[in-house]
Amino acid sequence: VSDFREDGHAAIEWAARYLENVGDLPVLAQVKPGELTAKLPPAPPEDGEPFSNILRDLDDLIVPALTNWQHPRFFAYFATTASEPGILAELLAATMNQVAILWRASPASTELELHVVDWVRQLLGLPEGWHGHIEDTASTSTLAAVMAARHVTGRNVLVCSEHAHSAADKAARMLGMELRKVPADENLAMGTDVDLSDVAAVIATVGTTSFASVDPVRELAERAHAAGAWLHVDAAYAGSAWILEEERWSQDGVELADSLVINPHKWLLTPMDCSLLWTSRPEDFRKAFSLTPEFLRTPDDAYALSDYGPALGRRFRSLKLWAVLRCYGAEALREIQREHIRLAQLFAGLVEDDPNWELCAPQRFSLVVFRRNGSDEENEEILAAVNRSGEIFISHTKLDGRYVLRLAIGNVSTTEADICQAWDALNREARQR
Amino acid sequence: VSDFREDGHAAIEWAARYLENVGDLPVLAQVKPGELTAKLPPAPPEDGEPFSNILRDLDDLIVPALTNWQHPRFFAYFATTASEPGILAELLAATMNQVAILWRASPASTELELHVVDWVRQLLGLPEGWHGHIEDTASTSTLAAVMAARHVTGRNVLVCSEHAHSAADKAARMLGMELRKVPADENLAMGTDVDLSDVAAVIATVGTTSFASVDPVRELAERAHAAGAWLHVDAAYAGSAWILEEERWSQDGVELADSLVINPHKWLLTPMDCSLLWTSRPEDFRKAFSLTPEFLRTPDDAYALSDYGPALGRRFRSLKLWAVLRCYGAEALREIQREHIRLAQLFAGLVEDDPNWELCAPQRFSLVVFRRNGSDEENEEILAAVNRSGEIFISHTKLDGRYVLRLAIGNVSTTEADICQAWDALNREARQR
Repeated sequence: VSDFREDGHAAIEWAARYLENVGDLPVLAQVKPGELTAKLPPAPPEDGEPFSNILRDLDDLIVPALTNWQHPRFFAYFATTASEPGILAELLAATMNQVAILWRASPASTELELHVVDWVRQLLGLPEGWHGHIEDTASTSTLAAVMAARHVTGRNVLVCSEHAHSAADKAARMLGMELRKVPADENLAMGTDVDLSDVAAVIATVGTTSFASVDPVRELAERAHAAGAWLHVDAAYAGSAWILEEERWSQDGVELADSLVINPHKWLLTPMDCSLLWTSRPEDFRKAFSLTPEFLRTPDDAYALSDYGPALGRRFRSLKLWAVLRCYGAEALREIQREHIRLAQLFAGLVEDDPNWELCAPQRFSLVVFRRNGSDEENEEILAAVNRSGEIFISHTKLDGRYVLRLAIGNVSTTEADICQAWDALNREARQR
Repeated sequence: VSDFREDGHAAIEWAARYLENVGDLPVLAQVKPGELTAKLPPAPPEDGEPFSNILRDLDDLIVPALTNWQHPRFFAYFATTASEPGILAELLAATMNQVAILWRASPASTELELHVVDWVRQLLGLPEGWHGHIEDTASTSTLAAVMAARHVTGRNVLVCSEHAHSAADKAARMLGMELRKVPADENLAMGTDVDLSDVAAVIATVGTTSFASVDPVRELAERAHAAGAWLHVDAAYAGSAWILEEERWSQDGVELADSLVINPHKWLLTPMDCSLLWTSRPEDFRKAFSLTPEFLRTPDDAYALSDYGPALGRRFRSLKLWAVLRCYGAEALREIQREHIRLAQLFAGLVEDDPNWELCAPQRFSLVVFRRNGSDEENEEILAAVNRSGEIFISHTKLDGRYVLRLAIGNVSTTEADICQAWDALNREARQR
């Protein structure tokens, strides 16, 4: 159908223009639920159309309904960047369309994945010998780790902090396990005075979603192991910061983990989806996932990455991570993260210096948790107003029952001017309440 | 880093050349385990490189280690096509980098996904009102369905045919469920005389991986429902053929299913990964999966597709399916499938007419299951020899303990000449034993 080169070059031009202009678009989509759906033909076409129609409809229909994750003033959830080498690598991966169900089905995808994940292990200063592979999201990585833990311990209880990601709740629900949530201390870190004697796995978080707080991994790991439990570390966001020596304080005890998840699609410039899952106990993952008995394993099987997670078919995800690591190089990645952290500290300083606002949690990594002095309703209205303006997009959470705001930095094109604009927008809307 | 337009156009040229020349490459990768790994630098680079280095290394390192799924003589597993509109849509999806954790995080991705999956529902003649969304693979889709079934039934037993996909075994293992396999009849279809009183879910398959055989879905659904069990239909491969009226015989009873998986990345020209999961019981999926944590709570939760499967973050997968359906149009997709089925019938005819070979299972859809008259070892050697030649790539399975060969057709560029070449290669290698 049509001409691949012609369509392809047009698609590249479309992508280049989108990336150049995304900063001029509203950050949060300015549409109502169902608005896009109403514009789409109810039935699929019988006859083919030119690819240029797709590009036209991207402009007319899709872009207005995007929340622009590539926008420099996207500060919600965890802000991300799909960098240019990563984007182009996804084109190439789709072209080769590898389905890496086992080694022979794609030696390139299988071996590059193991190799590039090991590169990241080196950059982060993680222990040698850990087995790492790629899942789609941290939810899946954590689910896989909990599955392995339950399988090898034969226990059915999961333990995490009250501030752990909802993926823990979802894993327990999906697996029919009991979930016990442990209260956090004044630093929002998980308590350690907990009986683990019947526990399959403890999830410790480095960089919680709400506050970027850090659980005491070493003590949790020691207690978990003493009780025969598995220790899984969720560092989906903050673990990427271990490329910086100065952020490795938060890595203390991680070398004791049984499994660890870190998402380069969050803070290492890689497009969705790229979640890295390491384990120091690969044989226990195989016990949980492999349908090939150990005594039948061939040299090919040694590489079957479907033995470490739920899916059988596997996309060539390592290609984008390879392209990002090579085209940036480690030092440029460090500089980008240092700048994000500097901008977060700058914003936290603005909040601290203004008596109308307060910092609600210790500032960590590239996240700032704060609120306007006033009611929950006032903060909720400020958030709704700035997001509705399209100028910035921030999200919220609850702390001790209070409504608090979150500003997360992670886009490669975010500048000091963007941070100042966010601060101005927040103050403007606050003054109008 | 570098120039996106320049790198992008070079990437398109690389992709165009790969697609033009893939038919001249060996189908099965001609490398040994570890061969690519040995050529990769052991440590990640400190300094950035130009993107052109990636393209150079694709040629030098990656392509020789590919098993070429895009090759017209790829006949193993289920043969697939990543079509050109689908490939370019993946570039565009990576550019926009949507993370559709809930509606407001990406109205476009959320609504287009619901809409395009409904287009496929219409093309396949499935019941109105079913809720459909996209997972990565059939393993995950089936896992999600079994999770929902277990959650709502409170039972812990899974039932499937002896010929069901290994995803059933893996789901039972991952969830700690008991799996009961039911013997198949002389047509390789699942038996129905089975007690389902304590069963959470029955998996019925339309188009088994080994033989493309079809289970009696209607009877299994009626029995499952009478016993309070869930009926999941795995039509990952063959369900796509329901775009053809003449293949709808295999859809009998599917309208009774509680859930159904069909993979457009298998036989609807869509790049990995695109697995469609429908359910007639969306509220039961939400009971199993929905959490709606505080930090994500908005008025738009009605559309949250993470409430229907394990992952929270979701890639903009619907874009490629939209591009494929529009750029081909339904009628062209039907013609392509009809041609694949015709080619399979042609090959089956060659086998049947030759006393040295035999057809081992009723020919269904685009799969042929066959063997050389002779020992298992002889067949194993023939398979190894043709695959080693790089000329074709086929796979095998076991039937009543005997080693049998599988030839699956699914690449859009496969012609009658390719089928004849496969037949010639098989006969050449057979004569040399």
